[in-house]
Amino acid sequence: MIAAAIDHTLLAATATEDDIRRLCAEAREWGFAAVCVNPLHVALAAVGVRASAVRVASVVGFPLGATTTAVKIAEALGALEDGARELDVVSAIGLLRGRAYGRYRDDLAAVIEVARRTRDVTVKVIIETGLLTREEKLIAAQAATEAGADYVKTSTGMLGGGATVEDLRLLRAALPLSVRLKASGGIRTLAQARALVEAGADRLGTSAGIAIARDERQGHVGEPSRAIERDED
Amino acid sequence: MIAAAIDHTLLAATATEDDIRRLCAEAREWGFAAVCVNPLHVALAAVGVRASAVRVASVVGFPLGATTTAVKIAEALGALEDGARELDVVSAIGLLRGRAYGRYRDDLAAVIEVARRTRDVTVKVIIETGLLTREEKLIAAQAATEAGADYVKTSTGMLGGGATVEDLRLLRAALPLSVRLKASGGIRTLAQARALVEAGADRLGTSAGIAIARDERQGHVGEPSRAIERDED
Repeated sequence: MIAAAIDHTLLAATATEDDIRRLCAEAREWGFAAVCVNPLHVALAAVGVRASAVRVASVVGFPLGATTTAVKIAEALGALEDGARELDVVSAIGLLRGRAYGRYRDDLAAVIEVARRTRDVTVKVIIETGLLTREEKLIAAQAATEAGADYVKTSTGMLGGGATVEDLRLLRAALPLSVRLKASGGIRTLAQARALVEAGADRLGTSAGIAIARDERQGHVGEPSRAIERDED
Repeated sequence: MIAAAIDHTLLAATATEDDIRRLCAEAREWGFAAVCVNPLHVALAAVGVRASAVRVASVVGFPLGATTTAVKIAEALGALEDGARELDVVSAIGLLRGRAYGRYRDDLAAVIEVARRTRDVTVKVIIETGLLTREEKLIAAQAATEAGADYVKTSTGMLGGGATVEDLRLLRAALPLSVRLKASGGIRTLAQARALVEAGADRLGTSAGIAIARDERQGHVGEPSRAIERDED
């Protein structure tokens, strides 16, 4: 089931509280892994997924990764306090581009160390593959691994390009299997989702989760399920 | 002189420390009002403009405006500590869209109140005109005014559209003259810059400041200045 690997994502600046409530209801209905929202909406989302298996993911330093380490820590702690159990942290791309690799890694390590004080927290590090050379992708993924990330995540979906099968293969071959991969950015179809999973993605970040899950369900069952009929009312 | 109204801006995720040093040198050379950078680069920029009239502007909650008030406050305080004297704060667009006007204003007021504890700080509130209806633009500008903003700023330059002459006229007619206006997003030419100033802009945020200032200088002097020759070497 691809649905169980989907982070149902709504990070638009214009998202309202009603939009977040709907996102949570959809995630429960379709059995998605998590909802991924901005810090402003974490507390509301935590209420929205209560008593379900859906987790709340908050972004940190999103989407530029260019706040200070101290601000990223404050943002992470606030989100955990508000009920997030997953943090999608944007790395400091400018430090990587400037070859300040130690500072690039340490920024992430400091945030992850603080996050680890809360039980059962998953940390994903966004490296923004669309803005990086092949060498930079590998250095970024290695730095995220050294910093203690649970996942390396390809993209914010807001800058540069999104996830590609080539990047997933590259990262899967380079990283220890204990580090998982989240593909994100531009994932719109079931075919894309399947190709990315096959290439190594453990989690998919997308705002097209319902269309993807519906197509998967139709393919499996051979006819529309009740949930689909209800959704199309 | 339009140059004196320009916030020389580099907010790309990929900006390196060398890029920031260059930005500061350029701002001093051309007599720009400020450099506008991400929080990660404020301390470096403060060194770069030392002993000049150029001010350092940091962004807060950039570009989505969807962090919590507490995180915006931490970000503002950190930037002021690092040497920023101007804060370009992104408002919580989702609260506005959801008609939570009181919370929209209070988020801004809390950040501005904290910023006021530091002497000589200019606060600009970004309302992101490109994502708003005419009514929302007016409500947002009014809320920013009530919250105590020095400037209403049109756009992040990253979402929706940028500054338009129509929006500047609309805002200038609606707001008290004590609230100034910053036009930003998509400003590339001297003609555009002049039209926006004529429509009411007191400050211009752009990454094309040098091209604009050079064209202005050439227009005034009639021939390339030494600074221009040096820049084109």
